[in-house]
Order: sequence, then C-alpha cells, then structure tokens
Amino acid sequence: MQKWQRLRSQMIIDHPWCRVRQDAIALPDGNIIDDFFINIRPDVALVFAVTEDQQVIFVRQYRHGVEQILLELPAGGFDPATETPTVAALRELREETGYVASSLIPLATLYDNPVKDTNSIHLFLAENVQLQHQTQLDPTEDIQVVLIPVAEVIDAIATQKIQVAGTIAAIFLAWEYLQSKKTQ
Amino acid sequence: MQKWQRLRSQMIIDHPWCRVRQDAIALPDGNIIDDFFINIRPDVALVFAVTEDQQVIFVRQYRHGVEQILLELPAGGFDPATETPTVAALRELREETGYVASSLIPLATLYDNPVKDTNSIHLFLAENVQLQHQTQLDPTEDIQVVLIPVAEVIDAIATQKIQVAGTIAAIFLAWEYLQSKKTQ
Repeated sequence: MQKWQRLRSQMIIDHPWCRVRQDAIALPDGNIIDDFFINIRPDVALVFAVTEDQQVIFVRQYRHGVEQILLELPAGGFDPATETPTVAALRELREETGYVASSLIPLATLYDNPVKDTNSIHLFLAENVQLQHQTQLDPTEDIQVVLIPVAEVIDAIATQKIQVAGTIAAIFLAWEYLQSKKTQ
Repeated sequence: MQKWQRLRSQMIIDHPWCRVRQDAIALPDGNIIDDFFINIRPDVALVFAVTEDQQVIFVRQYRHGVEQILLELPAGGFDPATETPTVAALRELREETGYVASSLIPLATLYDNPVKDTNSIHLFLAENVQLQHQTQLDPTEDIQVVLIPVAEVIDAIATQKIQVAGTIAAIFLAWEYLQSKKTQ
C-alpha cells in the first residue's frame, strides 16, 4: 500500500481560526485528483484528571459546530512548534478548571479525522490533582466544571451523557490503566 | 448555561468535498464574534463487525489529512437526509470489505469535533457477518481488509496499532457490550 503523492498545494483560506488547503494528488494507480481539501488544525491536548477523593474533572460548555452543550474532558488546542503536549495539557487543565497536576501519564496520541484534518490529539492521565487557582477563560469560553466519581464514568458513556469520541477514548484508556494498576 | 446566538451565516467554500461556513455570533455575555468558522461535513456510519469465528474486520488505508496509512473500523460518510445510519453502515461494510451483516446493534451516536464540525458519527456492532461480495471501492479508495481476533483488539489500542478516536470509542463500546452479554 502506497501513500498518495502531493503534486501541488494551495491555501484556500488562511485565517487564524480556519486554514483550508487544496491539494492536487496523484493516486497510486496514476489517477489525478485536483480538489482534495484538508483542514490544517492545531494539535489538541486532553486530560483525564482525577482528584484525591477519586472524582474525574469534566467541563460542560456550548459547542458551536453541533450547537449543543456537551460534557467533555478538559482540552485545548496548541501549536506543537512552540509548546509540548504535556505543557499544553497542564495549562489547559489549570486554565479551564483551576486544578493543578504535578505529573502526567501519557495514554495515547490519536487522530480525530485523519482524512480531512492534520491534527493529533494527545491524551493524558493525571492523578491527585488539586484545586489551586481561579480559572482563566478565553473570551469565547463559558465553562462549568463537573466532577464525576471514577466509578461512574463508564456508565456516563453508556447513558450517552458523554458524546465526544476523543473524550470517550481517553476515558476507556484511563480506566484500563487504573484497573491494571489496581490488579498489580 | 446558554447556547450562542447565530446572527449571520455565510458560505465561504461550497464545494462538494468541502463546505465552510462563517458565522457571526452573539455570546451570552453580549460580545459579538464575526469570524467563527464551521465545517459542514456529512455524518459518518462506523461498524465493529465480528465474523462467526470471532474476528473483527478492520480496513487499512492511506489517510491524506495526516499522510499516514492507518487501521480503522469500516466507515463512511452519508447524507442523513437521504439514508439512515443503519443503511449507511451496512452499505459501507459491504462496499469496503465484502462482508454482509444481517442486523446491527446501535452502540452510540458521537461527535468527532463538535467545536468546528457539524457531523455526528453513528457507531454499530454487527455479529456473525459473512463474506458474500466483492468489494466495491470508490476511485480514491485503496483498502486492505485486516482481521483481528476479538480477544486482541484492546491490546491493538494499547500498542497504538489503532490511532483513530472514533474507531477506539467503538471498540471499547463493543467490547463492553460483548462482555456484558457473556456474563448475563
């Protein structure tokens, strides 16, 4: 199996909040596609953060793409050229929730939509996080912090209280990690 | 917590493979944002399909957004105005892999990126699927069908052989379903 060959690229939209590239592609069978569109998006750092009393920290906020108020793990975009995933994850956790982690365990680096988007999402687990700061929200952020006991997070997925794929992948990976630690 | 109010929308790109909308928004605090960009994308149907001998059907293909060859569950886009998620899931499974399912169990309806994208992904489980057809691939599709024993799929996530959030969410949800069925 071969990668496609990128013949030409052109930026169609190059705005700070939206970057769209149009590629001309040569497929492995020799066919040419002139109009393959890619969204250039910042990487995302996401944290499954657990307090000392075994509560997982979620954020509830309005998401304009689907026009719904959703429950997700704390997360945010960052530029991997200027910030590491770990630093971004600690920063987003602190800014969105006020909680501080002393260390992070990497769970996985995933893709949301590898067909159309360039970005990765970096998933982390943080244990024994502590509330130490006021939240520092961006102008568009209106965030409610929600604590769910660790023992209830899988059930919150089953009942569709949690509906975002990256958050769900992180919850299951963190759950597996915590279970395997218990049985060691 | 309130939804944002959409004041105006303008289509910036309206191409069959890329639809970008620019919204002017009134935030709940009264502030106005003139340039919130949304990608209007088709819904996605995705299937965790298990053969009679307990193998899960994956597809391996090149994904141009991240320029990687990736292993994912069979999935594809569809227009919810003209096709149901169930019909789309059965069709994508048959077209991409040649396997046919007699019924589907809905696992969840999720979002990949609810901030920037409009679409849902609909996850299904199919048991006892049978190889009955030739694959019917689109011109851009170059797909290798890969079978992984059910008992090994969680491990394939842990070792990062599988890296796409929607596929991982579906695997964990299907795994939970199959485990709960076993213990009934």
